[in-house]
Amino acid sequence: MTTLLALYGRPEGGPEALETFERRYAAEHLPLVARTPGLRATRVRRVRGAIGGETDLVLLTTMDFDDRASLDAGLASDEMRAAGRNLREIAPGLATLLVLEEAPDLG
Amino acid sequence: MTTLLALYGRPEGGPEALETFERRYAAEHLPLVARTPGLRATRVRRVRGAIGGETDLVLLTTMDFDDRASLDAGLASDEMRAAGRNLREIAPGLATLLVLEEAPDLG
Repeated sequence: MTTLLALYGRPEGGPEALETFERRYAAEHLPLVARTPGLRATRVRRVRGAIGGETDLVLLTTMDFDDRASLDAGLASDEMRAAGRNLREIAPGLATLLVLEEAPDLG
Repeated sequence: MTTLLALYGRPEGGPEALETFERRYAAEHLPLVARTPGLRATRVRRVRGAIGGETDLVLLTTMDFDDRASLDAGLASDEMRAAGRNLREIAPGLATLLVLEEAPDLG
């Protein structure tokens, strides 16, 4: 399995801006993402803080694909492009996208 | 469920330093972590890159607990303290620890 991990930083504008981002993320962005070909599972989690430090991250979402080829095809799809355009509207400059792969040799 | 997410930055010293870190992480650190009371599941993934950017992260590990109270008890345990000491030895300054909670209202 290959996972696309989206990390979202805190939007400027206080709690109201965060609430607006979360509302539009759930109402607009996730339904667009859900249409991505090859997407097997999506999981959204809130960042509740950091241990021994601080963090600007507020939300983390994992999107699972069968393998890297499926992820690449998903990223290139019209559906994911539409989701990307939406993201640039609701959270400009706030998202970081990482590609994760399982590490069975590490445990 | 409450999840402790550890993000590991790339150690200085090139591929050899990364290999040493991964080897000690698997051989020393994970067995210590596994003894933590209340820990339900551990999952290690490699960071294979960023989409549309760069990243210094090399490894991500999720550690699941029943709830925040279990996580806090786990963090305060002798077992997790021993794991923390080991981490400061094998990856000084490279780890960020975040607390994640499920967001069923977001999807």
